[in-house]
Amino acid sequence: MRTVFDTSDPATNPYDLLTSIVVPRPIAWITSVASDGTGNLAPHSFFNVACARPPIVSFASVGRKDTLRNVLATQHFVINLVSEELSHLANASSAPFEPDVDEASALGIDLEPSALVTVPRVAASPVSIECRLHSSIKLGNSHLVLGDILAITVADEALVDGHPSMEALRPMSRLGRDEWGRPPEVMHLTRPERP
Amino acid sequence: MRTVFDTSDPATNPYDLLTSIVVPRPIAWITSVASDGTGNLAPHSFFNVACARPPIVSFASVGRKDTLRNVLATQHFVINLVSEELSHLANASSAPFEPDVDEASALGIDLEPSALVTVPRVAASPVSIECRLHSSIKLGNSHLVLGDILAITVADEALVDGHPSMEALRPMSRLGRDEWGRPPEVMHLTRPERP
Repeated sequence: MRTVFDTSDPATNPYDLLTSIVVPRPIAWITSVASDGTGNLAPHSFFNVACARPPIVSFASVGRKDTLRNVLATQHFVINLVSEELSHLANASSAPFEPDVDEASALGIDLEPSALVTVPRVAASPVSIECRLHSSIKLGNSHLVLGDILAITVADEALVDGHPSMEALRPMSRLGRDEWGRPPEVMHLTRPERP
Repeated sequence: MRTVFDTSDPATNPYDLLTSIVVPRPIAWITSVASDGTGNLAPHSFFNVACARPPIVSFASVGRKDTLRNVLATQHFVINLVSEELSHLANASSAPFEPDVDEASALGIDLEPSALVTVPRVAASPVSIECRLHSSIKLGNSHLVLGDILAITVADEALVDGHPSMEALRPMSRLGRDEWGRPPEVMHLTRPERP
């Protein structure tokens, strides 16, 4: 038997349900900068690839958070990968800091210059994706933000034969409520051929 | 040291790189129906939540695949969760079957009626998300498809106190190339309070 959740019922809180069934979600730990120069760092897990060529990523912001305001104002952002060793800092950066506080400074997270954009990256993160705002779409209580990827950097110790290695990246994921997923065990499944 | 990948260089294949760094990705195993009634079942991992309220999901189709054509033609689709026991069937359904072949029939995957939409769901999947096309956005070689969620169903054995349980869902994920992620070990991190 199945339970049917009627998402058109205003009494249903779709957020709690969605975050427990769209799993595991990759985490975009986003650095951005406000018009006045204040930095911001926050994790977003409604994140994925939107287009392969040219490369475009998307993230959805529920409500008007600092990241959204900064990206709309200054057009650029950097997505940092949350490796296992960074999970506690990523979670800490999700606290409701005031807009004039830079989470990275407050939490002692080292940033460093990016390759192409002026927004800095998280120094200890093995991957950075440097983006320029492509467009944003207002949807209900959320904004879907699309970003053109300008550059991708990968720490050399995370590359094997020039390609990112899952064992080296050790990516965390978000699940429901207070649940985070540890780096998954990798299973290899050969892509099937034409039947 | 870091390697910088210049994604504006036409010689770079962004797909291989993106699928190895935007990880782990949740899998939308999508059932859809063509105008002539032919069913289709295929996995898509450029998938996430686009809006919390009203609930909207997104998936990106690279190229013009059967799922995209069906959704644009008949407006409805169902996203089925790939639990660990379904991983080999989900991978098998990614083969380039001809458009007139229903992957579910060809692979012996049982479907059953959905709660609200006429597109069927995968009977053995613990979660189904029934969607109606909201809009689609052409981006380079891809289409980003947004779907309004009409209903969500969860197998009762996957619910604990009325909420989906990660231990019961055992969701697979996609990583790079031929890599799939097994259900991640769950870590609980308390949401930080206002500093």
